[in-house]
This record gives sequence, C-alpha cells and structure tokens, in this order.
Amino acid sequence: MIKKITFGNPFNTESVIKNIPTEKELSFLPGKINNSSGFEWKLQLEDDDIVYGLGEVMKGINLRGGKYVSWCLDQPNQDENTPSLYGAHNFIIIFSKNPFAVYFDYPGLMEFDIGFTAQNILKVSAEKNSLNVFIITPENAETQYKSENSHRLTSLVHQFRNLTGQSYIPPKWAFGFMQSRWGYKNQNDIDAVIQNHKKNNLPLDSVCMDIDYMEDYKDFTVEQKKFPDFSNYVKKLKKDGIRLVPIIDAGIKMQDGYDVYEQGKPFFCKDKDGNNFVAGVWPGDSVFPDFLNKDARNFFGANYKKLTDLGIEGFWNDMNEPAVFYSKKSLKNAFAQIEKYKNKPLDIQSFFAFSGLSSSSFNRKDDTTLFYHKVSKETAGDFAVTKPDEKGNVLVQNYQVHNIFGYNMTRAAAESFLQENPKERKLLFSRSSFVGAHRYGGIWTGDNHSYWSNILLSLHMMASLNMTGFLYSGSDIGGFASDTSRDLLLRWLAFGIFTPLCRNHSADGTRFQEFYQFENVCDFKSMLDLRYALLPFFYSEFVKAAKTNQMYFRPLSFDYEDDLRALHTEDQILLGESLMLAPVYVQNAIGRNVYLPEDMLMIEWNNSQVVNQKSLKKGDYFIDVPLNSVVFFIKKGKIVPFAKPALNSAMIDTNNFSIYGDAPEGTIYELYEDDGFTTDIDLQKGIRKIKKHSV
Amino acid sequence: MIKKITFGNPFNTESVIKNIPTEKELSFLPGKINNSSGFEWKLQLEDDDIVYGLGEVMKGINLRGGKYVSWCLDQPNQDENTPSLYGAHNFIIIFSKNPFAVYFDYPGLMEFDIGFTAQNILKVSAEKNSLNVFIITPENAETQYKSENSHRLTSLVHQFRNLTGQSYIPPKWAFGFMQSRWGYKNQNDIDAVIQNHKKNNLPLDSVCMDIDYMEDYKDFTVEQKKFPDFSNYVKKLKKDGIRLVPIIDAGIKMQDGYDVYEQGKPFFCKDKDGNNFVAGVWPGDSVFPDFLNKDARNFFGANYKKLTDLGIEGFWNDMNEPAVFYSKKSLKNAFAQIEKYKNKPLDIQSFFAFSGLSSSSFNRKDDTTLFYHKVSKETAGDFAVTKPDEKGNVLVQNYQVHNIFGYNMTRAAAESFLQENPKERKLLFSRSSFVGAHRYGGIWTGDNHSYWSNILLSLHMMASLNMTGFLYSGSDIGGFASDTSRDLLLRWLAFGIFTPLCRNHSADGTRFQEFYQFENVCDFKSMLDLRYALLPFFYSEFVKAAKTNQMYFRPLSFDYEDDLRALHTEDQILLGESLMLAPVYVQNAIGRNVYLPEDMLMIEWNNSQVVNQKSLKKGDYFIDVPLNSVVFFIKKGKIVPFAKPALNSAMIDTNNFSIYGDAPEGTIYELYEDDGFTTDIDLQKGIRKIKKHSV
Repeated sequence: MIKKITFGNPFNTESVIKNIPTEKELSFLPGKINNSSGFEWKLQLEDDDIVYGLGEVMKGINLRGGKYVSWCLDQPNQDENTPSLYGAHNFIIIFSKNPFAVYFDYPGLMEFDIGFTAQNILKVSAEKNSLNVFIITPENAETQYKSENSHRLTSLVHQFRNLTGQSYIPPKWAFGFMQSRWGYKNQNDIDAVIQNHKKNNLPLDSVCMDIDYMEDYKDFTVEQKKFPDFSNYVKKLKKDGIRLVPIIDAGIKMQDGYDVYEQGKPFFCKDKDGNNFVAGVWPGDSVFPDFLNKDARNFFGANYKKLTDLGIEGFWNDMNEPAVFYSKKSLKNAFAQIEKYKNKPLDIQSFFAFSGLSSSSFNRKDDTTLFYHKVSKETAGDFAVTKPDEKGNVLVQNYQVHNIFGYNMTRAAAESFLQENPKERKLLFSRSSFVGAHRYGGIWTGDNHSYWSNILLSLHMMASLNMTGFLYSGSDIGGFASDTSRDLLLRWLAFGIFTPLCRNHSADGTRFQEFYQFENVCDFKSMLDLRYALLPFFYSEFVKAAKTNQMYFRPLSFDYEDDLRALHTEDQILLGESLMLAPVYVQNAIGRNVYLPEDMLMIEWNNSQVVNQKSLKKGDYFIDVPLNSVVFFIKKGKIVPFAKPALNSAMIDTNNFSIYGDAPEGTIYELYEDDGFTTDIDLQKGIRKIKKHSV
Repeated sequence: MIKKITFGNPFNTESVIKNIPTEKELSFLPGKINNSSGFEWKLQLEDDDIVYGLGEVMKGINLRGGKYVSWCLDQPNQDENTPSLYGAHNFIIIFSKNPFAVYFDYPGLMEFDIGFTAQNILKVSAEKNSLNVFIITPENAETQYKSENSHRLTSLVHQFRNLTGQSYIPPKWAFGFMQSRWGYKNQNDIDAVIQNHKKNNLPLDSVCMDIDYMEDYKDFTVEQKKFPDFSNYVKKLKKDGIRLVPIIDAGIKMQDGYDVYEQGKPFFCKDKDGNNFVAGVWPGDSVFPDFLNKDARNFFGANYKKLTDLGIEGFWNDMNEPAVFYSKKSLKNAFAQIEKYKNKPLDIQSFFAFSGLSSSSFNRKDDTTLFYHKVSKETAGDFAVTKPDEKGNVLVQNYQVHNIFGYNMTRAAAESFLQENPKERKLLFSRSSFVGAHRYGGIWTGDNHSYWSNILLSLHMMASLNMTGFLYSGSDIGGFASDTSRDLLLRWLAFGIFTPLCRNHSADGTRFQEFYQFENVCDFKSMLDLRYALLPFFYSEFVKAAKTNQMYFRPLSFDYEDDLRALHTEDQILLGESLMLAPVYVQNAIGRNVYLPEDMLMIEWNNSQVVNQKSLKKGDYFIDVPLNSVVFFIKKGKIVPFAKPALNSAMIDTNNFSIYGDAPEGTIYELYEDDGFTTDIDLQKGIRKIKKHSV
C-alpha cells in the first residue's frame, strides 16, 4: 500500500512514474512532523529496529548510528563519516514491528540523522517544506523470493520500484569484464591492454576510455593524434569482440569555435544576470548544459550520435554532480583570503585557516547558488525564483534542485539513444544519480580507494542501491585512488565478478593495477573465468530482477526476516534466487566465518574450475578461502548453470551448461535472456532442464 | 640467540642497552644484502610466512601486503595505506619455518616493503649504509606463558626486550580512567568534567590538560586567568583523588622575556648558519630543544619541576616528531607558488597543483634538512656533517636522525623525574617514540579518528607495540578527530577498559564525547566499573610483564603457534596470563564470531556485575554481545580477581576480591603490586588464594 502526502507545491522530479492521489491525513506517516521552518520528521526507534536504504552511503546496510546528507558531491576524500557521495537516494525502510518505507521526493539537500545525535531518534529534514512523501506499507504475495515468514521487506522494495519504474537493462556484453584506467592516453595504451589480456588468456569485453582520449577534454571529440582513424579502430576492435566505452563529462569547455560550445550556448546554465555560468573543471573554464530543461537535454543527447556513428555502443557519464573545481567567485575569494595571511606570523588559528584556502574553491555548496535552470512553472512548483516567461518557464536555483542534475544528464543520453534506435540496448552508467535515473542507466560507486574496507563497503552499497532501483552497478575493483596490492585486488575481484558492472579502474598516478601487472596472472584468470562461466546466469538473474522490480542483490534479511542472525549479518549478500556470497575482505585472512541461514551447497572455484562442493546445514562455519579461490553458496533446492569459460561474452556457449546445485533431479532453472526467443535446452546430464524465457 | 652485524659506523641511538659483539659473518642475516647505495635487505617469503612488528602502523597484526615507512610524523589524515605515524619501531619478526627477528638500529628514515610490491618479497632499506642489525633466533625455556608447542615467538620478543631494556612502569593511578579533550580551557571546564563524573557515579582518576591551559601555548606556563590559584587547585583535586595531567609540546615559543626561551637559547636546534631554527607550531614561531644533546635534555627536563612543584605527577609529551606546520622557507615557498597561479585560468594540471599549495608547508620532510643536533663524534658515527669542535662534538642533520627526536624528549622528562625523586613513579606518555623510549614512558597511539575501524586498529597496535616494549599504551577512546556516536563510544570503551592507558580524548570542534554527554550514562558506568574491578589485576599483569620483559597484550599466535586458526585470528587478543579479548568492532552488530584456541570461561559483564559465565570448549562460537555488555574469556585453569568497583583507583579495596575462573579449588593468582610488601590474602570463599608479590 502506498500513500502520498504532499507538502507545499513540490518540484516535479519525475522520479515517480505512478499517479498516486494525495492524502489529506498526515497520520499515514508515523512519528512527528514539524514544518514550522522547512520540513522535519522525527520518529522514535526501538533498540532493535533496523533502518535500510539511502543507496550510496559510506556505512553499513543497517544505517543506524549514522548521519547522512543527500547532496550529490564529487567526493575524493571518503572516510567512514563522509555524509555525502555522488548520488542522492531518499528512500528508507524502517524495519520495526510494523515495518514501512518512505520515499522523500525532493530535489535538494536532505539530512537523515538515523540515531546518530540521539541513538533512538530518526530525524529527516529538508530546507523547504515542499515535497512529496510516499509512505509504503507491506502487502502480501508481492514477493518473488519468498521464504515462509519473509516478505515484508521484499514487498516494501517491490512497491517502491513499481512506483519509480523498471530498472535499466544493459546489453549482455556489458556483463563482460571491463578494463579501465585514468591514464590510457591513446590507441597504443589501449592496444597494450588488449594484447596483454590476449597473451594471458584473460577474458575482456571492453576497455573504458577516461578523459585523455578527448581533444583538450572537450566532450564528443576524439583527438586525432591519439586515434588517427578512430572509426576503423572501433570496428577492428569490435571484430575482436572488444568495445570501447568513452567517458562524457558534464562540463563543456568554453572555447570559441568548439561546436558543442557554440551550439549549446542557449542551453547552458545561466548566472543571475542571464550569462552562462562559468566554472573550472578538467578543461579549465567550462559551461554546464541545463539538463533539467528538455531542449538542453535534446541538444546534449544529440551529440552522443557523433560517437555512436563511429561505432561506439556504451558510455559513462562523469562529473555530473556537477563537480566544480572553482567558480570565478570562489577562486577569487581563495586568492583574496590567502593574501591576508601573506608576510604575517601564523599561529594555531591563522595557520589552519590559511592551510585550507587553496583548496577552498573545490565543490563548494555555495557555488551551486550561482547558477540556474529553466523549467516549466508546473515543474518548478514552490522552487521558482522568477515569474514565468512567455513560454511559461521559470528559473530554479541549482542549490535547491542540485540532486537531479546528474540524473538528467543520464536521461539526456538515454532519451537520445532511444530516439536513435529503440531496439538496441546501449551501455550507460553514471557517477551522479537520483531515484529515477535508474530507469535510464546504471551507476558505478564512484571514486573509491584501494582500501580493504572498500570491499565490504561495495557489498553494502550493492545491497542498498538495489533497494533504490540501481541494479546495474559495481565498484572500481582494486580501488580507484591510492595504490592497490595483489592480494587486495584478488580478494576484491572475488566479489567483483558477481557484480553486474565488473570493472577494474584506477586513477592516474596510482600503481598500475591491470591483472597482468602482477605475479601468477592465472589466479586472476581463474576468477574472470568464473565470471564468464556464470555470465548467462548473472544476466538472467539481472533481467528477471529488473523486469519484475525485484533485487539482483539483497541483504540476508530480505529472505530470512525472522532469523535474528540473518537480520544482523552485513558481510554476506544474496544474489538472485539462488546464491549467497560471503567474500573475504580482511588482509591475510585464510578464510572467514560464514552464517548459513538455511542449508546450502558450498562451491569452491579454483584454477578455473569447481574444485570442491559440500552440502552444509544451516549454521555457523569457518570456511577456508585460499587467496586464489572463490567460494560461494547455492541455496538447497536451487540449481545454477555454469557455461564453459570464454574469453569474451559473445563466445560463451549457452547451449551447454554444467549444472551445480543440491536439488532434486529434474529441477528447472529458467534462463532469461534478452534475445526474444524461447527454447528448451537439453542439458548434458539429460536430467535437469533449463527453460529459456524471452522477456 | 642474538647476533649483531654492523654496517659502516652507525649512529648510537642508545636504544640497545646490552653490549653484543659484532659479527663479521653477514650470513647470520638470511636473504640478500645490497649495500651498493645505502642499505638494502631482501628476503624471499613463503606464502604462509607471517611478518610481525613495527609497532605503530595502520595495518593488521600480520604486516604482509603493506609498505611502511619509519618516519615519525604528525599525521592527522590517516587511512589504511598511510605509511608513517608518530613512532618508528624498526623491529620485525619473520615467522617462517625457521622464525627469526631483526632489529634495525638506525635513527633515520627506513622503508619496509613487506610483500606489497611483490607479494613474496620482503625488502628493508635505509638511505645510509650505517646501522646495527640485530638478528634474533629463538631459544628454549625463555617463555613465561607457554603452551606445549608455543614458545618461539615469545622467545624472540623476550630476547629483543632484554636487549633494549625493561619497559616503563607508571604509577597505579595511571591505570585509572582519564578524561581528556582538546578544548578544556580553564578551571571551570575541568570542574564540570569532575562534577559530571561525580553526579553520574562515573569513576575518574585524572583529567588531561591539552594546550589551552598554557599562556599563549608556552610550555611550563599556566595561564593565571584560567587557573587563578593553580597550586591550591591541584591540591584540592588530589584530595578528591583526581590528578591533572598537563601536555608539554616540543616547540618553545620564540618570545623575548619568556624564561624557557631565554634560558634555552644555547640548547635549541640550529640552522646551517648556527642560528636557532625557527618554525611554526601552536604558538606561531617556535624553537626546538636539541633533545639529542644531554645538556639540552637537562635544561628542558629541569623545567618540568615548575609543574611538579605545584603538585603535578603526570605529563604527556606532544608534537615531538617534531610537528612543524611551516618553516620560514616552506611558508615563503608556498606563497611564492600560489602567486604564480593568480589571475590565470586553471585547468586539470594547474588547479590540482594550486589546490595543495596552502597546506604544502605542513610537516615537510625537506624541512627536517634545515636543522641540526649537536652530539659527540662517537655518538654520530657516519652521521656527522661537521668536524668535531673543541669538546669533541659534531653536528648531525635532523633528517638523518629524525626518528629519535621524540624519544629523547621523553628521556629528557624521565631523566629529570629520576633525578628529582628516584623512588616516585610519575605518569609520562608521549606521541612520538622510538625503540628505547619504552624505558622512559608510555605512548598513546596518536590522533586517531572516530571510525569503527579504529577499534580494531587499536587492538592491532596494542599487539604490535607490546612486541617493541611499549606496554603502557592505549588509543583515544571514542576517537580524537571526527564526530563519535554513542554506540561507537560504548563498543570502543568495551575494549579500551582493558588497555593500560584508558583515556577518552577528542579534538576541539568535534562532538563532545564525555560519557555523560550521552543517554543512559549507566551503560558507560558499568564498563568503567569493570575497569576498576579489574584494575588491581591489570596492574599486576602489567608489572609482571614489564619486570620480566614479557607482553601485557599479545596476538593469539604467541600462545598457540601450532594452531593455524589462532595464527590468523587478528580480531582477538590475549591479555596477560589468563585473558582473551574479542571486542565487537562492527556497528549495529549483535555479537560476533569468536574462536577459542582452547577451553575457556566466557564472562559477561553488564549493569556493573558479572551476569553470565559459561565454560566453553575449544572451537568457533557466535557470541551475543549487547551494546552495554563487556564479554571476555578466562583461560581454563586460570583465575582472575575482581575487586569491588570503586570511583577512584585509591578507593579500590585490594583485600577483598571475588574470584572468577574455571579452575580447581586452591588455584593461586599471584597479585603483583608496586608497593614493596608481600602478604597472603584469605579470599572470601576461603579456598583460593591470591599471593601478593612485591617487585
């Protein structure tokens, strides 16, 4: 059951696709509402209540004990208490005696104090008392993956996902392995990656192109010097089964004669005087398409065709919070402040004030008050800061609608792809996001670090992001910033091969972390082989989850609501209808404790094959996991089809599977594909069947 | 067995107290030595070798997979890959088929690449080929806490500790709880702490005074305005059983007329022209006592008497890496560089170059090349950069001997205390340290953060620091930087009550984190009550470990060398001869997995009493640990005396103990104290005995 309460005249974010009538009765939302100044909602929690949601955050799956700020932010310095990351996902579940979920449809900054300031008080607040609040309570029989008493959490998420629309589905090759690095500068660098993968028999489906492929960091350009015949190069690689995935940034270089800049002039965000808002990003002074405006989206989206015409089939959108290294104002201010400290003795107060100044212009909140978007007055609601113009459009300040900028960049691209060819799936993933963007593309979890803690963090994010609809996701395997080590990369990969987006990506200046840079490459190959062996299964589970508004990844609690241990197990995760993962995330560990909430079959993969399978009863186990093994668990009664490992997603033989699973003979696995045809496959043992379904 | 190999003519750090003859034969050190340029030692590791040691580092107990740099550093930004912290402890153990330990007695920067660059290569290097290397191999029957097959690790540490001298023992009150915060500005602030502890029946032994008690951050001053009658205030508090523990910084304010500055002029570190080296720290421009020089130590040490004469009995030495916010040169350079970017468009390269500039003067390595120490030519060895003067003294550059600066500040204080009253133990702990400093004082683990990961990190550090002789230690409970939460503080305290130095300390500007700031103070009281109940036991275990060159804390591997699981358990730790701790360090966890390497008695403490005890067999358990409980384990056959909780260490009744332990009647616990007399206590049950020993 979904109830909607409307406060004021909200901005229409278009994150919700269903028309829900507005209730007059505030009491549908338990707890206390205070809207004397802005919006504030308080709820008393019981000691053992769990709060889920918020998508991309730096904490555990249970959000209790944290303070979070929904504010899309380019945040390179992440620690356990970092309140804001790249996305804003204002959906929470309060799992109490009477569980319910709430979605706050609000485009600006929101705060979620979930038992941080006072351990048993949940407080959610927004600056403006103009928002739609959707309150969701469980319904029966809405669940796909049901165990006897477990359905309420699944029902809450399922209803929310119905409300906000079906998740983006990428092409199948996007489930292949991607190699990436900020630092591949030209064709030679990319060729080296591909050759090294070939030489070492490492599977590969795509190579990401970070900012260096462009001419002076200008979107939709390819520097001739670096790629003398880009079109043919793309074709040649595609013949080898390799696709290139270029990055597109939100900021457009301000340069006379650059066609995107010239053509886009009417469509860029303006400052208070109606001039283009100019700020510094990669190319130096840049302007920003007004993605909230349909005409601007059309202008920007159309430019992707320049690259799709050259054969490109996938993109990643970056810097779309938007990242702003400096505005003219903030940079000027930094220099002016610095001047005050010049030639003066510095002490405790003055030194620390001074030492932060040269980085003080970086991604400032107050810089977002300097630029505006043009939307219809109906869309703007209470957020309009001007009277409607002759076309009925008004301006809104980025600060007040900040969190839907990246979402609408993703939308700009997706809308243009759809227009170009409604039948072809393209790969699209973004750094910034908001609920609604999940219909248009995936996201990666942003610029993480080569820290051991980031393995578990990525597991937590997978769980929380799946609740909010972002199913196509993954973290930068091995870590983006900071230097990785071989053992970290292996343990990370052993989890990363299960994530839909499976990419090794690192920052310029850090240690090279392509798999072939390390000793005993075969250990990495073995894990990638498992990825490709299970790729048809992963894609099937993904398509099924997306099409039915379910979760590809989910916390144990979703299937075992009445099991206290499962409720509080946050270092294991369920995948689709059959798998449980329990990755090793501690350096130098020889294994780990695993809790089995029901009987399961343990599978150990090593040296590119299943080397060990063991039926285990519900309970606690210490499981040995050598550094080069992947261990995972299949629920009893379920089967999983393993294809023969292949070097490329297109080369996978989906007519021959080995079946693993502790299940009766004749158990059927329904393999979902995206190819539109249905067939029955006779499996090798001639006993179990996989029934293919088109979707 | 200890062998010593001497390379070149080393600097005499005085970290070693035993005279060991120098071997000619390099082969006592397995692996390869390369001294073509500086010193480099490489060793091939087996997959399952473990490397221990290095004291204060950001990694696990097993150091494999990390790169570490011994370089004493004021490091406020700590992450998993931070190579250097406040201390330098060049002692490592290679636990292989033929385990051995190595101590590198070298005062400058050293690098330890322990399987980071190549997973199975250990590489240790120093810039100068002038050092003493001590190679230690196990001896039998050297162990105190023996299990059948476990003695080699204990023997290695024991021999190293014999080599470097007995650990500092603080007075018993230093095992009481300390409340601290950078931000207590005056008598009122301190009174508020004490009153709030009283009001809530929270035990307290001391309050730390951070930098604000001083007049303009001048060492050995107390600002009259803030403490109108300091001497009487100290006396009054002491009557109440509360001691004040002031901070002393390494940098001396350069101010004409300030007696310490005036008297110290001959004793400060000089620049290359023989002028006092001036750099910015808390008070602004400051000078630095040349602690490596005995006369300078005497000058500085004598100043502590100003405060001990007022009744002060304990100090903490800080900023003694030394921290240098800026030198004249580095600050000038920062401004000059900034100037270059002024009024210019900034792009990808230039913006990031610019943005780091205003903090670029902070704790620069190259600033340590700007100042010098005066030592005897015998001490300096190859490190002398001048010819001997008429007294036979030479100059050495701080850069080359950087890591022994803080050590010698601690020594300056300790030597003066000894001179003043050789029979009275004073509390002394430091931020910076080096092997050798452990004879003079304890250390705290520096400026940590309010992160959940820092609970486990502090456990790891306790294990590693104990190997290097630093027994009196602890982390800032609740975290120094960043904002804590109630649940984090409780879980941290549940481990912190077992550390010799038990202090809640936080940074100015962060959330207040005294226990009474939170709901249900009784939960904190219960844990402090356990601290005080076990204080006689902790002090006894500590004194015993210190006097016999054993470890108060040690990894499970030290007692269970042949148990593979114990070898790789890094989130549990042994305390003294009887306890095993397994703290909960994950937010929102309801308990944790615990591995018992032998039969043990589980004790649960809640609501200021033992509420649960259970004998458990060797094996794996999931143990429920409510947020307000402390759970720990007593080895079978051992007993632990619990005193009645008291509000102050002096109020503990050491004649009446409750005895816990799964042990035969008549089992004796030998209670060590520092009071010089021996007696037998008849225990309440009249069956078991505690035999008191003087030391």
